[in-house]
Amino acid sequence: MALHDGSTADRVAAGDLRAAARLMRDLDDQAPSARATLRALFPRTGRAYVVGLTGAPGAGKSSLTDRLIAGYRRQGRTVGVVAVDPTSPFSGGAILGDRIRMQDHALDEGVFIRSMATRGNLGGLSRATADVVTVMDAMGKDVILVETVGVGQDEIEVAALAHTVVVVTVPGLGDDVQAIKAGVLEIADVFAVNKADREGADRTVRDLQMMLELRRSTATRPPPDHDELHRFQAGEPWSPEDARFWEPPIVKTVATRDEGVADLAGAVEAHRAHLESTGMRAERETGRARAAFVALLRDRLLAGALARLAGEQGHLDEIASRIAARQADPYALVEELAARLRG
Amino acid sequence: MALHDGSTADRVAAGDLRAAARLMRDLDDQAPSARATLRALFPRTGRAYVVGLTGAPGAGKSSLTDRLIAGYRRQGRTVGVVAVDPTSPFSGGAILGDRIRMQDHALDEGVFIRSMATRGNLGGLSRATADVVTVMDAMGKDVILVETVGVGQDEIEVAALAHTVVVVTVPGLGDDVQAIKAGVLEIADVFAVNKADREGADRTVRDLQMMLELRRSTATRPPPDHDELHRFQAGEPWSPEDARFWEPPIVKTVATRDEGVADLAGAVEAHRAHLESTGMRAERETGRARAAFVALLRDRLLAGALARLAGEQGHLDEIASRIAARQADPYALVEELAARLRG
Repeated sequence: MALHDGSTADRVAAGDLRAAARLMRDLDDQAPSARATLRALFPRTGRAYVVGLTGAPGAGKSSLTDRLIAGYRRQGRTVGVVAVDPTSPFSGGAILGDRIRMQDHALDEGVFIRSMATRGNLGGLSRATADVVTVMDAMGKDVILVETVGVGQDEIEVAALAHTVVVVTVPGLGDDVQAIKAGVLEIADVFAVNKADREGADRTVRDLQMMLELRRSTATRPPPDHDELHRFQAGEPWSPEDARFWEPPIVKTVATRDEGVADLAGAVEAHRAHLESTGMRAERETGRARAAFVALLRDRLLAGALARLAGEQGHLDEIASRIAARQADPYALVEELAARLRG
Repeated sequence: MALHDGSTADRVAAGDLRAAARLMRDLDDQAPSARATLRALFPRTGRAYVVGLTGAPGAGKSSLTDRLIAGYRRQGRTVGVVAVDPTSPFSGGAILGDRIRMQDHALDEGVFIRSMATRGNLGGLSRATADVVTVMDAMGKDVILVETVGVGQDEIEVAALAHTVVVVTVPGLGDDVQAIKAGVLEIADVFAVNKADREGADRTVRDLQMMLELRRSTATRPPPDHDELHRFQAGEPWSPEDARFWEPPIVKTVATRDEGVADLAGAVEAHRAHLESTGMRAERETGRARAAFVALLRDRLLAGALARLAGEQGHLDEIASRIAARQADPYALVEELAARLRG
């Protein structure tokens, strides 16, 4: 019980790596004391800048992450890394040896790396990721990089935890226009075309530019807000230019040779400046809080209901067997449980 | 209220396309009457064979799906398709024109195609997909193809709804061993190497073979079950061969030229026969029921709690704003709600 009290929160907030690592393990194990520590840490968060990196397996996200870490460290900024990508060497998912120089960072106290298991945690991936981001934020990390794979809904939820989302793509899938995904356009703040020394890099950049133009031409400007309308009525010229509009920059990188990575970091900073100058950072914060809260609520309720069901109806596997045999009605079970929980 | 009563269920079960399409729309809108119809349909399900197709964007899953549909139709089997892939032309996600001949199938009453929105439904993708599979199963579809993208947790949950999971890969990512994902090995029952006329196809096949060998050599045989032990004690020789072991076949395909697609369908049938001869089909059914039930429970509880919160604390966006400003504590909110719901 004494493992996670106020003093644990103090140690984590002071940047104690061992306390933070143990807290994260205990969070994985759903220890109640760990959740209490998280509550104690929450008011001390909100300072870190969270950057999401997403893209298909093999796009080189981990190499880019590696180079970005090095760049931030040269600037004297501390870095947290959360790898939600099962293919990432950060999360131990790479099959064969990888040239990523994680070992270097492992000896650097300014870098904290945490990989997430993507299996077996009943939908809890975005909640678990949000928890780790909270801990790293409370530890005082300046920048937190969240590496995810693909464009599934889960990845979109994880990306929703970021201030800036970098979508990493590569030449070579270029002849499949499908490879540039509709969903990705909606979440990308910055595009990185990695492995840009490969044939077809310029074509990939052109394809992306074309897609962005298509979107821009069809994007409708949002209606003027109260202030804009007021200024217009006061005689100021009405500008159809939307200061809030952000055109995602496209940056060519060759992570393995450290080319273009400084430009990529610059594009992230530009997006951050844009969010801050337009007041959109507060909106992002609300979006981040919303995503984290919904994930937390969903997990907590599911865990509680499954525990209750296990007591009343038997374990989940038994219930599933009865449902599979059409001896139990899943809809009736859920409605019955929801009705009882409601009252 | 009369929209979805017993007679709606009867019409859907009789294969009425318009009734089924309306039911699916109403399920999307969370109409209570639609859920009642789903309950009425549930006892009439369990006959369809569900095949999941997953793989990276640009792997050609949609072309393969198209060809598989045609093959099943030639055998006189009816087909349902659920496209959970935002890049799929089935779900309208393809950016430019696609040569997929969906139009042909659109005129075929034996084929029912439904695409799923992957955004905006608060974690409900696997539940929504399970609902659509239930409807198609009740309609009497012989085979249901579920097309998903990537290996995120959400996709893994969707894949858990399938009896047989086909993982589609392509040559060209071959120099990144990362591209063959750890998570994918765990869910694949059959591998398709599509676009096999491209350079590097043989290398991709070899890489997959190597990974499967690695897995086989490290796989530990499960301990003998009661029957096996009994037979051994009765003097029968103990066989270290596990009849339940399934080595995923690797099939080369060129979907655009309809090459290898019959072999792929044959590999799916072989897996089905394996499941049935070993008694593993019942386990899969339990696994499917479990995945669908958990998704249903999670969604239902979240929706109920958010509705209750909206009444008490304001809408989700207001709550998120207060959390973002650190004026509200998300952990306290969730625990308070869970405690009240528990009692």
